[in-house]
Amino acid sequence: MSDDDYDSGCAWIEGEYSPLNEARIPLTDMGFLHCDATYDVVAVWNRKYFRLHEHLERFEASWRRLHMSPPLSTEKMREILDGCTSRAGLGNAYVAMIMSRGMALPGVRDPRQMQNRFYAYATPYSWIVKPEDQEVGTHLVISQNTIRIPNQAVDPTVKNFHWGDMVRGLFEAYERGGQTIVLPDADGNIMEGPGFNIFACVDGMLLTPATGMLEGITRRTVLELSAELGITARAEQFDSEVLRSADEIFITSTAGGVMPATTLDGVPVGSGKPGPMTLQLRQRYWDAHEEDRWTTAVNY
Amino acid sequence: MSDDDYDSGCAWIEGEYSPLNEARIPLTDMGFLHCDATYDVVAVWNRKYFRLHEHLERFEASWRRLHMSPPLSTEKMREILDGCTSRAGLGNAYVAMIMSRGMALPGVRDPRQMQNRFYAYATPYSWIVKPEDQEVGTHLVISQNTIRIPNQAVDPTVKNFHWGDMVRGLFEAYERGGQTIVLPDADGNIMEGPGFNIFACVDGMLLTPATGMLEGITRRTVLELSAELGITARAEQFDSEVLRSADEIFITSTAGGVMPATTLDGVPVGSGKPGPMTLQLRQRYWDAHEEDRWTTAVNY
Repeated sequence: MSDDDYDSGCAWIEGEYSPLNEARIPLTDMGFLHCDATYDVVAVWNRKYFRLHEHLERFEASWRRLHMSPPLSTEKMREILDGCTSRAGLGNAYVAMIMSRGMALPGVRDPRQMQNRFYAYATPYSWIVKPEDQEVGTHLVISQNTIRIPNQAVDPTVKNFHWGDMVRGLFEAYERGGQTIVLPDADGNIMEGPGFNIFACVDGMLLTPATGMLEGITRRTVLELSAELGITARAEQFDSEVLRSADEIFITSTAGGVMPATTLDGVPVGSGKPGPMTLQLRQRYWDAHEEDRWTTAVNY
Repeated sequence: MSDDDYDSGCAWIEGEYSPLNEARIPLTDMGFLHCDATYDVVAVWNRKYFRLHEHLERFEASWRRLHMSPPLSTEKMREILDGCTSRAGLGNAYVAMIMSRGMALPGVRDPRQMQNRFYAYATPYSWIVKPEDQEVGTHLVISQNTIRIPNQAVDPTVKNFHWGDMVRGLFEAYERGGQTIVLPDADGNIMEGPGFNIFACVDGMLLTPATGMLEGITRRTVLELSAELGITARAEQFDSEVLRSADEIFITSTAGGVMPATTLDGVPVGSGKPGPMTLQLRQRYWDAHEEDRWTTAVNY
């Protein structure tokens, strides 16, 4: 199943599969020159997609919101995701689909006149916090000088590559001794971090922001699993003081699932160790990767 | 001097020149996947760069602000700009330089560990409003539903590809019968549009926003030329009501210079024709392209 050429992963561009480290896109693609693109990422775990339908559905909602028309059907896109994953020989994978605006014709600046493009790639499963580091938990910092791009400017529910705020925040986190950052909005409400949503356990109840951030599929999964486990979980806005009062904090992402944050601005969160609610939900999250309702076999 | 292969322009990537329409960058460049890049564009007019020094200076300030280290010297970059322009056989050109974060190593998400990359390209000179359309002037719309990404999120003085707000605004402009858009900030102050700064002539005085937008080199040129012409020009924040009261409005960009806007939200600006201050500054702007102080010969 594996091929040495595809060690870095496998990409699909303009009808051709190629090793990811050789994959190239046009310099003049407005996905690059104007960040005019949307994307989605689905995980493959034990040779099965996790919530593929939900990711494809969100991807379609995103490109529709950007007034894009895909050059191929969703069924064909799905075949390409299979093609990337199987060529890369991956049982556990991070599988990305991208729709970009496409290239400007000479002298044309009107995005309606561009032919939208589809790209895809599969790489080995990626972790924002690696399993071995989850024993200790990640060191999270609340940004003091960068806010999340507001939804009045760029709609965060359309998954996008506008990461300038996130990268600026990461440099701040490193300077302040942290490993990753969570950004507030202009009113001080906690929003999200680079590639993840956030949950706080406060007075036995789970809180996660309601608006202004990506509506993550892992976030949705945690909310649904919480309901099944009888954990009260609410999507509502909260500020840094509420986050500081949390007994547990965890972050959620397709790149790593449920991952504990054990310090906040250098101060231990609760016991300073991954908490019981975090560990319970992390266990349920990974168990769910074997359940029929949310999994689809990769067609290798 | 010209070469058919380079009709679309000429790019420089990884040490090689290529026709622009064949130029490709890595799919995994974080300049694409995280919009983690900065760029600048200098015009060539009559075989001379216009304010090359200022563009290179701003470019350096931008990549420094992003904690980037260029893979080559500014002198070498300049040679590459010459190389792109001359290979494309262009006497009038739009010459772009890009610094991107570079590729993530497998499993590495820390931007400090990435090798930054330089790209460049030259294309035929590009106009936001073509000369023949400047007789009528462009139809400008003030966005009602999209704000400019605030500088607390992404620093607009670091020239960047975060155009999600701009593209959303363009679609709004088209729906409302306009040709381009200007975005306000959250407080209603007028900021900038897709690729341009804005000036309003109010009570015989020129106004342009002071902060929250790119500090355009064309904007700077207009401020300097205004001072020389004895026109009072001020950089200060103003809202849509002030803009509506303007006798003249024009937009400024390296892609087209000084370009009149003659309607605002469908209502004629002043006389509804390009105004005298706009025409005077446009003439001075183009005359200045022959002046030694601001021009540098391309090394063909």
